[in-house]
Amino acid sequence: MNGGSAFSPNCPVPDMDSKHIELAHGSGGLLTHRLIEDIFRPAFAQSPEDLTHDGALIDVPAGQVAFTTDSYVVQPLFFPGGDIGSLAVNGAVNDLAMCGARPVCLSAGFVIEEGFSVSDLRRIAQSMQSAAQAAGVRLVTGDTKVVERGKGDGLYINTSGIGTVVAPAPVSPRQVRPGDSILVSGDLGRHGMAIMAVREGLGFEPPIVSDCAPVVAPVLRLIGEGIPLHCLRDLTRGGLATALIEIARTAGVAMLLEQSEIPVSPPVRGACEILGLDPLYVANEGRFAALVPPQAAEAALAVLRGFDPSAAIIGTVQEQGVPGSVALRTLGGSYALDLLACEQLPRIC
Amino acid sequence: MNGGSAFSPNCPVPDMDSKHIELAHGSGGLLTHRLIEDIFRPAFAQSPEDLTHDGALIDVPAGQVAFTTDSYVVQPLFFPGGDIGSLAVNGAVNDLAMCGARPVCLSAGFVIEEGFSVSDLRRIAQSMQSAAQAAGVRLVTGDTKVVERGKGDGLYINTSGIGTVVAPAPVSPRQVRPGDSILVSGDLGRHGMAIMAVREGLGFEPPIVSDCAPVVAPVLRLIGEGIPLHCLRDLTRGGLATALIEIARTAGVAMLLEQSEIPVSPPVRGACEILGLDPLYVANEGRFAALVPPQAAEAALAVLRGFDPSAAIIGTVQEQGVPGSVALRTLGGSYALDLLACEQLPRIC
Repeated sequence: MNGGSAFSPNCPVPDMDSKHIELAHGSGGLLTHRLIEDIFRPAFAQSPEDLTHDGALIDVPAGQVAFTTDSYVVQPLFFPGGDIGSLAVNGAVNDLAMCGARPVCLSAGFVIEEGFSVSDLRRIAQSMQSAAQAAGVRLVTGDTKVVERGKGDGLYINTSGIGTVVAPAPVSPRQVRPGDSILVSGDLGRHGMAIMAVREGLGFEPPIVSDCAPVVAPVLRLIGEGIPLHCLRDLTRGGLATALIEIARTAGVAMLLEQSEIPVSPPVRGACEILGLDPLYVANEGRFAALVPPQAAEAALAVLRGFDPSAAIIGTVQEQGVPGSVALRTLGGSYALDLLACEQLPRIC
Repeated sequence: MNGGSAFSPNCPVPDMDSKHIELAHGSGGLLTHRLIEDIFRPAFAQSPEDLTHDGALIDVPAGQVAFTTDSYVVQPLFFPGGDIGSLAVNGAVNDLAMCGARPVCLSAGFVIEEGFSVSDLRRIAQSMQSAAQAAGVRLVTGDTKVVERGKGDGLYINTSGIGTVVAPAPVSPRQVRPGDSILVSGDLGRHGMAIMAVREGLGFEPPIVSDCAPVVAPVLRLIGEGIPLHCLRDLTRGGLATALIEIARTAGVAMLLEQSEIPVSPPVRGACEILGLDPLYVANEGRFAALVPPQAAEAALAVLRGFDPSAAIIGTVQEQGVPGSVALRTLGGSYALDLLACEQLPRIC
């Protein structure tokens, strides 16, 4: 108990004004405090109480809350249309929206590699705050860890979120019924192809821009218009095909999609052809599928088109067919879609 | 849209029965599903609805909920008294308890390095489930990402948690008052020294065992006994000294600690001397400080001693003194404690 010493004998005095993250930034000591005060508090905190305790306190009405978590390991950290920070915030709020919930607050956990640029961290924190404001949600609690050089890849972020359920009936794969219409909220594949284009050094002109965005507003509008939402699912890792196969399996239903109705922009289609990828399996970060009763399909489409004109009705849940199957009808016939056995696009989110 | 192909042309067919994590386990595709079905669902899920959607739905009473997050990057992953899994669960429930809340549910986000042992992952998931049961909390939602070899360090885990606030009055540094007694729930420094002993290859006999444990039960008992809890703080990264300095600064008070009253076991004291570390700054993962009005101190001590006989009253909040200061009274005089400028023990949690 060498009270009085502010420096442990076991480590060198750190550079308090380093432009790069040092291990000491994760120590819980002086540099951790400086990091919080310099970067995270200005970007996140909205009251002086925020960020000073082990957790945040939130007032909630009685009822159901939705709770979600995701870690983000995207490479590169910055890409056309977003960065790991906006991606982490939008990913969390979108997961909550998919539960029929209005997002209330988020947490942010940072695992930073020693040597990471402090200015990049500041830029990412500010991007998170902008994304949170755009989605109407607060970042209320966080955590920072630093790992040695070579034990990370710059920055990993976990966001978890809480939302209050506002949909009047359960929104879940188990609510899906034969006859339901399947809609998508906009054109597919832009996030994944934006990442791949940067990573592979493909200089598309103009560049493909990620669709990374919150989908809270269209979901709340669908609920506000009284449209019965049987199921919602964001079309992230694994894309449309994986999402619908998961839903079909959980619901025990067969789906049929019309290839000609599935919106894919010409640049994304072209990039997929060059890289040998299937846009149905490419990740999106601002797109979702909605399954609604057939009589509500046109009203739902009108709502979605108000946010994005490329929204479309792309298929139906079949009255018959193999439970858990998703078929794609093309000019040449129908094909069964299946889960990919391997990684088409690693580190896309 | 090469519907019908379950394999992308861009990656080799993975080994579905690999004993090591492959990138495809993070793809969102077939291997991700297998990982969830084989490892996470048996360990975590308590109802078939669990883990099948983008988030979990939880019923909460009206009122305040506490919300917390932490990422865990401890090395080694397994240590005497616990592992990264039990640490991640106990860390989350303890943060909630420190808010005066009863933990309700947790999320778990895994960032796994390619090549990590599947059997170690299974063991860690089972350890998380055991820790969750011991703390009376459910693991309800999760996420898995896989990063390339050399971009991680085996496994990082984020846990976030939700609890319902049960303390009748706010539990926060701002509630601390001059005259308050400062208690600790047990002897200090075992977690940090258990980690260090393994890492440095120090073969203490018997080995120092981490104090990693939930502190939910003693906190709920303190609340149940009607003891006014001004502030609670778990003594993790940075140890007792860092925790109390943070509280003193936020509360704008001065604290005086009695060195002779601070419980440190002889093995921990000896290990600290060998390694040149100060046990006041060494991390604990099952210890907390409680600040209570002086008239409640003995009753609080009796409750804490019912859980651990080494609990102690170690100091007081001063009526006068420099706001934000924490002094340690020793046989040789009083010394001011300060935040460490550097990392005494990296990767301890």
